[in-house]
Amino acid sequence: MCKMYNAEILTIGNELLNGRTVNTNATHIASKLTLLGFTVRRITTVGDNLKDIHDAVKEILSRNPMLLVTSGGLGPTYDDMTVEGVANALNLKIELNKEAYSEILEKYRSRGLQLTEERLKMAMLPVGAIAIRNEVGIAPGVLISLPGTDILLTPGVPREMESILEKYLKEYLRFKPDIYYYEEFFTVKGVMESELAPFIKRLVKETNIYIKTHPKGHETLSPSLEIQVSANGKTKDEAVYKVKSAIEEIKNKVKSMGGVVV
Amino acid sequence: MCKMYNAEILTIGNELLNGRTVNTNATHIASKLTLLGFTVRRITTVGDNLKDIHDAVKEILSRNPMLLVTSGGLGPTYDDMTVEGVANALNLKIELNKEAYSEILEKYRSRGLQLTEERLKMAMLPVGAIAIRNEVGIAPGVLISLPGTDILLTPGVPREMESILEKYLKEYLRFKPDIYYYEEFFTVKGVMESELAPFIKRLVKETNIYIKTHPKGHETLSPSLEIQVSANGKTKDEAVYKVKSAIEEIKNKVKSMGGVVV
Repeated sequence: MCKMYNAEILTIGNELLNGRTVNTNATHIASKLTLLGFTVRRITTVGDNLKDIHDAVKEILSRNPMLLVTSGGLGPTYDDMTVEGVANALNLKIELNKEAYSEILEKYRSRGLQLTEERLKMAMLPVGAIAIRNEVGIAPGVLISLPGTDILLTPGVPREMESILEKYLKEYLRFKPDIYYYEEFFTVKGVMESELAPFIKRLVKETNIYIKTHPKGHETLSPSLEIQVSANGKTKDEAVYKVKSAIEEIKNKVKSMGGVVV
Repeated sequence: MCKMYNAEILTIGNELLNGRTVNTNATHIASKLTLLGFTVRRITTVGDNLKDIHDAVKEILSRNPMLLVTSGGLGPTYDDMTVEGVANALNLKIELNKEAYSEILEKYRSRGLQLTEERLKMAMLPVGAIAIRNEVGIAPGVLISLPGTDILLTPGVPREMESILEKYLKEYLRFKPDIYYYEEFFTVKGVMESELAPFIKRLVKETNIYIKTHPKGHETLSPSLEIQVSANGKTKDEAVYKVKSAIEEIKNKVKSMGGVVV
């Protein structure tokens, strides 16, 4: 039922591949899209490498997501090559984008600075792309609308990515999922994950909701489980009802097994 | 030069795709492998979904990495399906693994517990796989050695993943890179990223090292850059020398531009 609203995320940067930076950008984007009703099917991270960006974009588009959000590689330095990699994958030429140009010109001019080749690079966008104004930094976001798929490029600096993603979701989103997503978490102690597993398996089969148990303590010595219950619904009420009913059933089961709901 | 030591990471779990959990496991694995001299080329995240795991593993193996480390999906619950997904991708049958069986049996027995179907599942491994003992939890790690590629499956619980990865790197690693990796970071203020970019570009071209500037402040209002310099070398001394020489050059350039090295 959610195939129509599949989304993917592509994060770009060597610092993510060498373990220097935790990929909180992917988490933020994933969270925002999930709450809107999208199903994020895959997150891919590649380095600042033209071929790897090109290949990843081609592969992602072959899976036909409705939305691809990328983060990283939009800045002025030699290793910022997301625009070029995406344009190559789409066979699009790169040209000076008027809106991006005036945005960048204005930002540097207001500081009394010239537009060098490196700065101008941030205004060179794929033909037909829309520049989304960056309210907290320089490099604009880039929106490429293909039939059935939107591709949104955002910078790697977290607050710039967040600001442009927010602007896209509010002002540019073409396809708004008509499903609602709801989730709740709770913690139980004194029941082992493996002990609860058959019950959870049956409940998921019967109710078509999603339940995940996250073990926090030691499985046999001091079992503690955080339990996540989530569901989609055609209305918000439907999603909430599904989740709350399942939680009641799980809590009753845990208590009957001698466990404690925290 | 590093193609021989390419590595990839596959993290599995819906909680990573819906934004509930920050993927610190990928960062930890990436950091450990990089320090050993591997080049992590790609990190992929998919959900608890047999087809997606299967597809991701097939795609990764088609790129011939020397090492693939996965994390997540090894536990006793219905949505733990990494072993099955990987076995499907490799056309391997799953069988009861004797070492895994006695490890799991011992852990539950010592608590006076029986081996249920869900618990036994953690001992069902691909034919020919090696079980790597889990010193801090239940589900053992799984090592599958193919010609030219090792596949290491680790659990999703961070301290279990860390412990099994450590054990693998110390006791089982087949191919130890004979290259050394070294990196340093420093911060400069008062110089814009776009202003420094042409110099960095030239330096990277001339020296074959890796330099990345991470903007921390606002590009034009209060520029602050963390600069990362890293290099590989055939000896540790060579790697260190390359990095330190480049840092000297950058610091001199920053000062000549009116910037400050913090």
